Amino acid sequence: MTAFAPLQNDTFLRACMRQATPYTPLWLMRQAGRYLPEYCATRAKAGSFMGLATNTDYATEVTLQPLDRYPLDAAILFSDILTVPDAMGLGLTFAQGEGPRFATAVRDEAAVAKLEVPDMDKLRYVFDAVTSIRKALNGRVPLIGFSGSPWTLACYMVEGKGSDDYRLVKSMLYSRPDLMHKILAINADAVAAYLNAQIDAGAQAVMIFDSWGGVLADGAFQNFSLEYTKRVLAQLKRTGVDGKVVPRLVFTKGGGLWLKEMAPLDCEVLGLDWTVNLGAARALVGGAENGPGKALQGNIDPNVLFAPPAQIATEVARVLDSFGTPYQGTGTGPTHIFNLGHGISQYTPPENVAALVEAVHKHSKAQRS
Amino acid sequence: MTAFAPLQNDTFLRACMRQATPYTPLWLMRQAGRYLPEYCATRAKAGSFMGLATNTDYATEVTLQPLDRYPLDAAILFSDILTVPDAMGLGLTFAQGEGPRFATAVRDEAAVAKLEVPDMDKLRYVFDAVTSIRKALNGRVPLIGFSGSPWTLACYMVEGKGSDDYRLVKSMLYSRPDLMHKILAINADAVAAYLNAQIDAGAQAVMIFDSWGGVLADGAFQNFSLEYTKRVLAQLKRTGVDGKVVPRLVFTKGGGLWLKEMAPLDCEVLGLDWTVNLGAARALVGGAENGPGKALQGNIDPNVLFAPPAQIATEVARVLDSFGTPYQGTGTGPTHIFNLGHGISQYTPPENVAALVEAVHKHSKAQRS
Repeated sequence: MTAFAPLQNDTFLRACMRQATPYTPLWLMRQAGRYLPEYCATRAKAGSFMGLATNTDYATEVTLQPLDRYPLDAAILFSDILTVPDAMGLGLTFAQGEGPRFATAVRDEAAVAKLEVPDMDKLRYVFDAVTSIRKALNGRVPLIGFSGSPWTLACYMVEGKGSDDYRLVKSMLYSRPDLMHKILAINADAVAAYLNAQIDAGAQAVMIFDSWGGVLADGAFQNFSLEYTKRVLAQLKRTGVDGKVVPRLVFTKGGGLWLKEMAPLDCEVLGLDWTVNLGAARALVGGAENGPGKALQGNIDPNVLFAPPAQIATEVARVLDSFGTPYQGTGTGPTHIFNLGHGISQYTPPENVAALVEAVHKHSKAQRS
Repeated sequence: MTAFAPLQNDTFLRACMRQATPYTPLWLMRQAGRYLPEYCATRAKAGSFMGLATNTDYATEVTLQPLDRYPLDAAILFSDILTVPDAMGLGLTFAQGEGPRFATAVRDEAAVAKLEVPDMDKLRYVFDAVTSIRKALNGRVPLIGFSGSPWTLACYMVEGKGSDDYRLVKSMLYSRPDLMHKILAINADAVAAYLNAQIDAGAQAVMIFDSWGGVLADGAFQNFSLEYTKRVLAQLKRTGVDGKVVPRLVFTKGGGLWLKEMAPLDCEVLGLDWTVNLGAARALVGGAENGPGKALQGNIDPNVLFAPPAQIATEVARVLDSFGTPYQGTGTGPTHIFNLGHGISQYTPPENVAALVEAVHKHSKAQRS
């Protein structure tokens, strides 16, 4: 394994570990995306979304684009949450102007029986991208690897595409919970292997996106989402190729009501969407000085980025202040990683992102003074 | 005003008032809908959704259809949540296979300046339907009137149609909160006048559907949704044409995180979606014996109706048991009205609804024995 360059900006990793930082680090979900003209140019060269994601050079190029524009504190692997079921043989495609779609949906006992943890060699393009990006970053900021959660993957696998009512996947969940548990167990083991391979390839933190956990009923969330997130976490490597601890982040969109039940998760960071009050979340799961607790990540509404810079600064301050001053001592305590509460919109004006980044750094420094 | 027939089944109204009932009353959001073949037949006769909603005879016919099939404990006016902005002149249409759409969207200062509380005469067809339905019910069960919440109406008025990111309405909210507040104040006064006219026409309870309150950020929900729901409630008549108290129900989909902030609302019932644990909600806002508190309504996942009858019964029991045994004394205490956590899906097999209704009545009687 090649030695990677030493890390210059460790604010993100420190905040993940609930250690003090001079300002609140930030990155943006989907920061390498269609709102950037340079991303659209690279995607045009690649021909398609999967052409972009499977080409190491292109994936590296687009991952670094937002960092060249903005002083962000972390990079995130450019990829898709559905690469794992694609490697299971379901045939992922992205039709122009539509979301992802699988050629084969998993809807009955026979289809479930065929599922297995895919050969990680089929996902080599992802691990190659991780190593390539980490080298290209050259120590500027840490690189986050990621995967969809077992439940979120199952939603797409059963529905065959995005859904607004989750009728098919929930029909299976309520009618044949045994089948749903089989899918989720395979997904969990596949996600764990996938994230471990990303860690081996150079990822310095890993995040599980439970994008659709929030559509589940109370009770079903615990049994069909949280339980399998735990199963992933239990299998994850604790240190990366350079021997450093690899923080694990879990983000359940719409999961604010279950925060207390997520507190015992074996991970370092909980991501939150904009419906959650950060102060309340800090009180619930943020922990005390030198006690256990989770770092919190989030949670401004991405639509704030459609307001003028002055209003963006106001809303940024509101979010930072709702968390309050992060821990400033030499041990561990409550910390905050600024992010959006969901992926950035493709319609976002890039200059407004600059205003947001500036406001976060400025106001969070002021909080500490 | 014609005298209406005396009410035979008052379980719903009693439960709204936190009084004991021999079983947990139930009705289903969107119970008169496309899952019923007889509804589709009437709609075909009417030619269009608005043709159905604006024709008193048809609206009466479809409102009663689910009651003829199932022993439900309340009827709800057949109408749409967008009749009020339609009466403001925005031109509501329903394209085949799509959701509602307005000919005119409200997106700038000039459009907001033109808005006003509509002449309630333009909504006469709704009030006529209320009276007609109440007569046709002939005292079988009480009739619920309803409206969209000020915020939910504003979402459609600004977006012009349904949205999956609420980008336009939130752009206005964050960029021009002054304009958003103007729209919401007008909407609140219009909704209040609209619900009062429904009460005068014979509605025995009224419900405010804040279907999109849950898409707002913490802070924004309180300022842009809850505040205007309060403004509606403050203007509502307290008694109906027969001198009886008219309970007021408020349902914010995705609002489970703000339940504590909704507890002081001047209404009798809070509706909950399936993400909320009913036991936790009861402890938070359900009140104690003879003390203040809210009746709770909800909250089974409508997708449970795609499971076989045995699983439906299991899930029904789970929801009823999560609330626990309702108050059984002679004063007031915590009560539960069974419902879905959202409107019933058009794909629901009608026989599964029968299984659900039977399970609710059976299990809730057993809870009390």
